[in-house]
Amino acid sequence: MSEVRQKAEQAGQAVAVLNRLTTAQKNEALLASAEALVRSTDAILAANEEDLQRGRDNGTSSSMLDRLALTSERIEGIAEGLRQIAELPDPVGDVLETLDRPNGLHIVKRRVPLGVIGIVYEARPNVTVDAMGLCLKTGNAVVLRGGSSALSSNRKIVEVIHGALEGTQVPVNAVQLIEDPKRASVDEMLKLNGLLDVVIPRGGNSLIQTVVQNATVPVIETGAGICHTYLDATADPVMAADIALNAKVQRPSVCNSMETLLVHEDFAENHLTELANRFKEAGVELRASEAARGLISWAVPATDEDFATEYNDYILNVKIVRNLDEAMAHIARYGTKHSECIVTQDAANAERFQQEVDAAAVYHNASTRFTDGYEFGFGAEIGISTQKLHARGPMGLAALTSSKYIVQGNGQIRQ
Amino acid sequence: MSEVRQKAEQAGQAVAVLNRLTTAQKNEALLASAEALVRSTDAILAANEEDLQRGRDNGTSSSMLDRLALTSERIEGIAEGLRQIAELPDPVGDVLETLDRPNGLHIVKRRVPLGVIGIVYEARPNVTVDAMGLCLKTGNAVVLRGGSSALSSNRKIVEVIHGALEGTQVPVNAVQLIEDPKRASVDEMLKLNGLLDVVIPRGGNSLIQTVVQNATVPVIETGAGICHTYLDATADPVMAADIALNAKVQRPSVCNSMETLLVHEDFAENHLTELANRFKEAGVELRASEAARGLISWAVPATDEDFATEYNDYILNVKIVRNLDEAMAHIARYGTKHSECIVTQDAANAERFQQEVDAAAVYHNASTRFTDGYEFGFGAEIGISTQKLHARGPMGLAALTSSKYIVQGNGQIRQ
Repeated sequence: MSEVRQKAEQAGQAVAVLNRLTTAQKNEALLASAEALVRSTDAILAANEEDLQRGRDNGTSSSMLDRLALTSERIEGIAEGLRQIAELPDPVGDVLETLDRPNGLHIVKRRVPLGVIGIVYEARPNVTVDAMGLCLKTGNAVVLRGGSSALSSNRKIVEVIHGALEGTQVPVNAVQLIEDPKRASVDEMLKLNGLLDVVIPRGGNSLIQTVVQNATVPVIETGAGICHTYLDATADPVMAADIALNAKVQRPSVCNSMETLLVHEDFAENHLTELANRFKEAGVELRASEAARGLISWAVPATDEDFATEYNDYILNVKIVRNLDEAMAHIARYGTKHSECIVTQDAANAERFQQEVDAAAVYHNASTRFTDGYEFGFGAEIGISTQKLHARGPMGLAALTSSKYIVQGNGQIRQ
Repeated sequence: MSEVRQKAEQAGQAVAVLNRLTTAQKNEALLASAEALVRSTDAILAANEEDLQRGRDNGTSSSMLDRLALTSERIEGIAEGLRQIAELPDPVGDVLETLDRPNGLHIVKRRVPLGVIGIVYEARPNVTVDAMGLCLKTGNAVVLRGGSSALSSNRKIVEVIHGALEGTQVPVNAVQLIEDPKRASVDEMLKLNGLLDVVIPRGGNSLIQTVVQNATVPVIETGAGICHTYLDATADPVMAADIALNAKVQRPSVCNSMETLLVHEDFAENHLTELANRFKEAGVELRASEAARGLISWAVPATDEDFATEYNDYILNVKIVRNLDEAMAHIARYGTKHSECIVTQDAANAERFQQEVDAAAVYHNASTRFTDGYEFGFGAEIGISTQKLHARGPMGLAALTSSKYIVQGNGQIRQ
């Protein structure tokens, strides 16, 4: 039997036990894991150094090495993440619906764990712990498949967590790490219907597409964001500039940052030149539609491909539109249904935009950068869903649960 | 451009309009479609006769021909289904959650249509109307791909519905029928990411597996049910027999009927012989474990494969178990997580069973045959989900919706 199948089956064996655990027992395991990680800092750093050395030998880029690198501060931060997950309310067991039928059947729809969750991710050892913590808190077993260049780090981290779980009610089998570095082990995971209840990719667009294109197991698609901010004719110019700048430059590398600024022609006429200069000062390269270049002569022309690109960088498309409809049509064509914003003082326009734009989060007069589990108050997130099934937008703990109908009868049979 | 892609794009063009419709406008379209179908009975029956004739020429089985056949009564029944859907509450627009953040952001999570739903089904013309009705009621566009042997019927039905929609606010584009009879058109549908938000298979296990194995679009898996009834030591013998017989013979062909009866050894000793005779009288063939054959000498031996088979027929496996744990272990091994039942007077055993058995619906002292949208009070169902994402168990209208976060700010930016 392959490593992947064997470990998925072992994870499955933990499901019944996880189902019976109390919130306190799960929290105890999270806290024990946090403590063990901090206590094992030296061993984890030594393992991490093996990965880093291999990366340097292979000419890995410095930004990739930075994602891979652990320090004692980062390990403390990772442990703190587990402690925060322990503090969160446990959604498992919540009653979602109660149905009393005329025939006397009493039906309760109750939140339950999903079962076994597969996580496919890149060379970021922090995801190993974070994903494990969110899955355990919700009573799920987890099969982790991280990037092979973080294998030494991940192996040590999981070894430490297994050691911590030994002293708790959570079975060690609940946390599985796939060590096979070959791409085939990912492909195998993606087709483990019956053993994995869901696979969640965490990483860049190419990883996500690999998972979406190859999985037969249900997937929660996360990630890609081509987000727009539309400055309407009546937008407050100060607010508009603050929101647009924040959406682009507060952290350009993330999915909820803005890629294209849409500007009503009236607003543009009065304010675009000044706003463009502020972007320039912030180090942002502008790519502009023809009309916009009339006001921002130094901007390069924006192509159709530019409008369809998630830069995640200090680059911004600017387009002048005649009205709300043209703005919404642009978003419908190029958006990825992640986060979209209108800045306006016109309540009717705001309402139409929020009603008609099809995205996980639609903002009026606030930066798209708020699409985030912490900012929404969920306390932690496994990712931001860009699909419409199961969960949409920032996913808190509840996104890692399913439901079950508990039906109580006294002899009912169907006529 | 292929027919499939072209029609999916046309369906997509209807989405924005559908989003704006009121419940009354959607209901009007449903009622107009119902009326038009009844009014066009003769034309639909003539088209159906073409399909039936082709089927007879091709040697199609009589049970398949029966599923395919329409009569004026069946058309009236199909139209009545649409009228009932019109009566149901519209879930779109419901507020699911309200979040007020410390920074003043006001976030409302609202129910919205999924967008464009693909339905892949077999040669049952009633599904064409039923799926269309459920999708329209929830503001979704639908791309229908029915079995090619019902093509004439489906084409006429959709033509009639398009005619009815002409006079309403629902765009004709909202209902698309794929006419290409080749299997390749199904394969193409299953990979239309970005154009279809979800695909739902409706039909037998082989159709469902084709969809699950080949789709890159999110799927809601419906269907297969290997359901168990466990008669515990303290089960009331009359209730136990009534529930077990009902679960098997009230309608053996459906997914929530029982395939395996598990019997505690104490209950078996006193009651199994008599119960077996009642199954025999009802025309059920029994396949029994070795211990059970000691009490039912005429039963054939049950194989491992039998326990893993969804008969959907007058065949039942019987197995004697020593205790609750053995019953639950059997269900964990062979069940499909659909519907499971315990009959017992022991409240602690009932609670453990309902807590620990992993299935969409877990019954205490009632027949598994109740797992059904109508019986749960949802009024209609698009199917019974056997996966754990998005929807589990009978799916009412809400299962055909997603959600969206509407975020209201007054200039908030992220620090």
